[in-house]
Amino acid sequence: STLRCIGQSNANSIDVFFLIYASSLVFFMQAGFAMLCAGCVQLKNVQNSMLKNLLDACGAALGFYSIGYAFAYGGSDFENPQKTFIGTSNFFLIGVDNLMFWLFQFAFAASSATIVAGTLAERCQMAAYLCYSMTLTGFVYPVVAHSIWSPQGFLSADSVNPLWGVGVIDFAGSAVVHLTGGTTAIIATYLLGPRRGRFYDHRGQPLEIPKEFPGHSAALQMLGTFILWFGWYGFNTGSALNLSAPNKDEIVSLVAVNTTLAAASACVSAMATNYVFEDRKVGEGTFSLSHAMNGCLSGLVSITGACAVVDPWSAVVIGFVAGILYLVSSQTLIQIRIDDAVDAVPVHMANGVFGTIATGLFASERRMALAYPHANDVGIFMGGNGTLLACQCCGILFVVGWVTSLMFPFFMFLNYLGWLRASASDEVEGLDVSYHVVPPSRYLGTDVEDEVKGPPEHVLRVLNFASFVCIITVYYAFVGLLNIA
Amino acid sequence: STLRCIGQSNANSIDVFFLIYASSLVFFMQAGFAMLCAGCVQLKNVQNSMLKNLLDACGAALGFYSIGYAFAYGGSDFENPQKTFIGTSNFFLIGVDNLMFWLFQFAFAASSATIVAGTLAERCQMAAYLCYSMTLTGFVYPVVAHSIWSPQGFLSADSVNPLWGVGVIDFAGSAVVHLTGGTTAIIATYLLGPRRGRFYDHRGQPLEIPKEFPGHSAALQMLGTFILWFGWYGFNTGSALNLSAPNKDEIVSLVAVNTTLAAASACVSAMATNYVFEDRKVGEGTFSLSHAMNGCLSGLVSITGACAVVDPWSAVVIGFVAGILYLVSSQTLIQIRIDDAVDAVPVHMANGVFGTIATGLFASERRMALAYPHANDVGIFMGGNGTLLACQCCGILFVVGWVTSLMFPFFMFLNYLGWLRASASDEVEGLDVSYHVVPPSRYLGTDVEDEVKGPPEHVLRVLNFASFVCIITVYYAFVGLLNIA
Amino acid sequence: STLRCIGQSNANSIDVFFLIYASSLVFFMQAGFAMLCAGCVQLKNVQNSMLKNLLDACGAALGFYSIGYAFAYGGSDFENPQKTFIGTSNFFLIGVDNLMFWLFQFAFAASSATIVAGTLAERCQMAAYLCYSMTLTGFVYPVVAHSIWSPQGFLSADSVNPLWGVGVIDFAGSAVVHLTGGTTAIIATYLLGPRRGRFYDHRGQPLEIPKEFPGHSAALQMLGTFILWFGWYGFNTGSALNLSAPNKDEIVSLVAVNTTLAAASACVSAMATNYVFEDRKVGEGTFSLSHAMNGCLSGLVSITGACAVVDPWSAVVIGFVAGILYLVSSQTLIQIRIDDAVDAVPVHMANGVFGTIATGLFASERRMALAYPHANDVGIFMGGNGTLLACQCCGILFVVGWVTSLMFPFFMFLNYLGWLRASASDEVEGLDVSYHVVPPSRYLGTDVEDEVKGPPEHVLRVLNFASFVCIITVYYAFVGLLNIA
Repeated sequence: STLRCIGQSNANSIDVFFLIYASSLVFFMQAGFAMLCAGCVQLKNVQNSMLKNLLDACGAALGFYSIGYAFAYGGSDFENPQKTFIGTSNFFLIGVDNLMFWLFQFAFAASSATIVAGTLAERCQMAAYLCYSMTLTGFVYPVVAHSIWSPQGFLSADSVNPLWGVGVIDFAGSAVVHLTGGTTAIIATYLLGPRRGRFYDHRGQPLEIPKEFPGHSAALQMLGTFILWFGWYGFNTGSALNLSAPNKDEIVSLVAVNTTLAAASACVSAMATNYVFEDRKVGEGTFSLSHAMNGCLSGLVSITGACAVVDPWSAVVIGFVAGILYLVSSQTLIQIRIDDAVDAVPVHMANGVFGTIATGLFASERRMALAYPHANDVGIFMGGNGTLLACQCCGILFVVGWVTSLMFPFFMFLNYLGWLRASASDEVEGLDVSYHVVPPSRYLGTDVEDEVKGPPEHVLRVLNFASFVCIITVYYAFVGLLNIA
Repeated sequence: STLRCIGQSNANSIDVFFLIYASSLVFFMQAGFAMLCAGCVQLKNVQNSMLKNLLDACGAALGFYSIGYAFAYGGSDFENPQKTFIGTSNFFLIGVDNLMFWLFQFAFAASSATIVAGTLAERCQMAAYLCYSMTLTGFVYPVVAHSIWSPQGFLSADSVNPLWGVGVIDFAGSAVVHLTGGTTAIIATYLLGPRRGRFYDHRGQPLEIPKEFPGHSAALQMLGTFILWFGWYGFNTGSALNLSAPNKDEIVSLVAVNTTLAAASACVSAMATNYVFEDRKVGEGTFSLSHAMNGCLSGLVSITGACAVVDPWSAVVIGFVAGILYLVSSQTLIQIRIDDAVDAVPVHMANGVFGTIATGLFASERRMALAYPHANDVGIFMGGNGTLLACQCCGILFVVGWVTSLMFPFFMFLNYLGWLRASASDEVEGLDVSYHVVPPSRYLGTDVEDEVKGPPEHVLRVLNFASFVCIITVYYAFVGLLNIA
Repeated sequence: STLRCIGQSNANSIDVFFLIYASSLVFFMQAGFAMLCAGCVQLKNVQNSMLKNLLDACGAALGFYSIGYAFAYGGSDFENPQKTFIGTSNFFLIGVDNLMFWLFQFAFAASSATIVAGTLAERCQMAAYLCYSMTLTGFVYPVVAHSIWSPQGFLSADSVNPLWGVGVIDFAGSAVVHLTGGTTAIIATYLLGPRRGRFYDHRGQPLEIPKEFPGHSAALQMLGTFILWFGWYGFNTGSALNLSAPNKDEIVSLVAVNTTLAAASACVSAMATNYVFEDRKVGEGTFSLSHAMNGCLSGLVSITGACAVVDPWSAVVIGFVAGILYLVSSQTLIQIRIDDAVDAVPVHMANGVFGTIATGLFASERRMALAYPHANDVGIFMGGNGTLLACQCCGILFVVGWVTSLMFPFFMFLNYLGWLRASASDEVEGLDVSYHVVPPSRYLGTDVEDEVKGPPEHVLRVLNFASFVCIITVYYAFVGLLNIA
């Protein structure tokens, strides 16, 4: 029994160490998001973007310490079949034994919040961002995490009594993390409006060709992409939560390989598809670095949920589709004049949805048996009966609905208070000059007079009605789901 | 017994792996320091700063290989109650079995040296820096590490017979690493004098408002901060030195969580306090990115010593105070016209002191029992009788005294030789042009004539006396301490 | 037996985790190579260089997934004494159980390919690069890896029946990875020709003093160097492939320490030697950052093959020589007018050769007994009889011969098709404008007219013959080797 103790103690050490490793890599993704943003924005807004990234991480730590963790995982009990909507204990880490689990989950919450930073770049007020960041990590994200990942969650596949005998399979968070962040991003940018001069001229008339705002450094954007990919090895493998339980080493190996293959495949497909499209359209294709980089990230997002349950060839296929989906949704966003400074919506929202569905399509019996032994269905392409796919769709509806029903009114209210959008002159000058201590030598002396007119004010008029419809719909969908489960 | 062997062999593997992980992260902090410096200095001095950072790492490796490790840990023996001032065996790694321990300790020595690089940026000669760097990592730092961390150290809490039954508790080096580096930094910058034009005009008259020398890239500074935070997960957790001993997994988990919370709390407190101060002073607050970043680092430094023995809520409090302390000490330095190009003194020295004291205030009984079972006191806020706090103060006095008594005369001597300060024209042109092969296309053609006058020469006059007093004081304090122990 | 199971399961977990750690660090080296390139090239070619780096990683993943891994390790069997030239099973990962091993090997293949990206920077067409990258990772590199690392390889030290009872000792790939990449780089740059204006004026006359093309950011180059060094801790230690086998913890510790010492020593030796040379030549030495950084990398490359079998003092010596060798070969390349934009040939090829030879010189009996217990010779400086050194030379000949015999005709063919070199006007304008979507605001308006004349066309005439001779020579050397073994 002493020997058993040594074995058990070693297993504990391995598990704690594994989570330290994974948490530190996921935390490092904050640097990746920051460099991505820094590379994508204009020089005049770099400091502002950086500060938002840093405060996301810090705010998430404090918010998740005080209330977020309690809402998400407070009092989780793997044996208890009762389902709850939200956790209600372990505030301020009181009574929490497994501190490493907190660290890992904090890093996820921080990622979820940071996704939005890039989208809103160059035009969002600092105060609004701080409010948003606290709300997301303190309440909105924890409820999503609780529902899908806590053993008491009503959609959880780890529950002893999961939805329809299967539950939502979201191994590392295509839906929980990326769709939550991506949905928030699209709501926020919709209400915030496009950057001045992006889609409308100074009289408010739509431009023939949208104006590009080129980022100030391709090298930093590339660095951010590589850091994110690197961090994803912690993000996805770490979601196994331990290595000592049976089969975990096999699961984790598969996860790491699938992550790699999907990223590579999506990068190539996004770049190649873009090349072919351009070649057809204007007679000469170009190799687009930014499409290649965002394609890469799209592949990573899309495999995040499915990585433990699909075969490597499926990861290649999922990545391939993700790359094309990224391109299509990026173009669509521009068509409907929604301005996303870093393409976070196509990357995280579109591919968050796709990744969650892909699990319902490609999950293989052999892999499911190892990772989710209690689930009694597989992907429909692999012989499933559709129950898993239906669960996955429920998961998507729940996440989109929940986030929208909270964040839409929230951002509307901020907008109503005048806290959301930076003033016209601040935006044209650059937020660094306006909000931060920036020495005169950096002031670039843009002529402000000429451009301060006409944001598309009329957009705001339709929002009240749309918001109302949206919230009602979501509410009923949500209640319906709860009753079904 | 074969089974026991397997268990033991696994434990060995885990421990070696854990130190590889931690060492590589701590080593990566060199990149963090480098990016921080690169971001903070003017473009004309980037190459010079980078080279100093690189040579710190390389010099530390060679110095610590040849003599530093021997001085710090040579012949350490956990059973031996005898105390020594310095180690005397294992030069050139001869006879060292645990090579990973060397690697981890080398990475710490390199960090200690690199702290100074930023402070001296933009005006220190290359040769002086090389001399300093070798002295610190080869002799000054090893003696500090020996005294506080070696089981034979006269202040060590790991000794079988520690000072006053407690010893100095400095888990990951608030005092050993950061205070050593920070004290050296303040001495060096005091003797080196401020950058030309920072506090004095060209006739040597003090300026009303000190001139800012804005760094050339906020993005790189942010990257450096995130890399440092990331590396700190190796720095602090790795200081447990192994994972297989009893309770180590619990200790390490706590360490990682405390590290996170203190960083986040300090970032928010530094930024918010600065906002409030500015708001009161000039009627409008700004969100300062550089204060947020340095606040973050201050929190990390201050929790470094205490991370294994305080509760998470204490980490939040310690971080909060660290953020404010950073602001106050940064302002104070400017008031007394000491020029620190990257605010390393407020971050590493002020918070190194505070972190060491904080351990004496907040160390909790439960945590102490796990991490330092032999120590018989706790923090005074947690019911201690003050013995621990007294030990901590001794530790601070010893580090400051030892470093000052060596480095002050050392830098004075360099100054006397004319090796310390770059010439006026070199400084104005930028050190990259002067000391490095820089192609003409990068030469910015600043007009040198106008600015080359008047460093504050009179400062030097008072130094001899001050130095003398300082050394004498320190010497007696030091001897007294040794006798007490 | 349950207990044995727990012990075995823990060992498996440790091994999988160790490879995740190592693979993620090696993957992160892609970011290092990218930042190194970004720092070294002119601003007008940054996007182009970044895209090449990204596609290397992605192409390697897909190529190594589909065919590369099968060629390199397909059907490896440690008990089987039969030698094969190439693996023939496990295409598309079918039937592969140890997925982590794939991930680790993929990261190596990607590194090998990326080495070339920098050398060809600023003048190579995108399509040619894509063709090259796929060929290298899909076929050329896998054959090398098979020959030296697979247990069936005809040069492998892990074979049950190795060449001359010893085999080629290349622990982490001085020859397999770096020499393969470096040889490809020199062939490619030789056929591609120097950048316009580097060695010849616009009439095709050689310049007295070669023109420098300074990189646009020393900070990014430094960042790349530190990331590479950091990644090397995964590259070299991970090459132990597991930690649970006997003695692996000791081997891995030695590897990490040797890696550190060689890098530090080479950095100092390259910088100091350069200083002394310059001092003698022009009367005043300068501290060259780029020599220090490349010296560092040279030390890392040279210790890569030997790190598990030499003592720490040998690592210092090897690093010292590597630094000088880098300087000499860098100067030689300039003398013979071969243009290497990032000095990858001196770093990876020259030191790849040296590192492989150094193993035959310095391998010590005690270390060999732990890492390669079946090998019956040691380094000649340590009492060996020269068999090991002879094996090492065979390894070098094989790698250089194999790579040359394939890549030389390959690049000649690309050149013949006109796919290799960017057009004169594209090169002068910068490849970002030509090949990528670059907004007009970044167009720098260089005057193209003046510089578009005269690449050294006559060089191409001698190539056919040289190529022919080379291929014949290599072929016979190769056949001879196979017969000997």
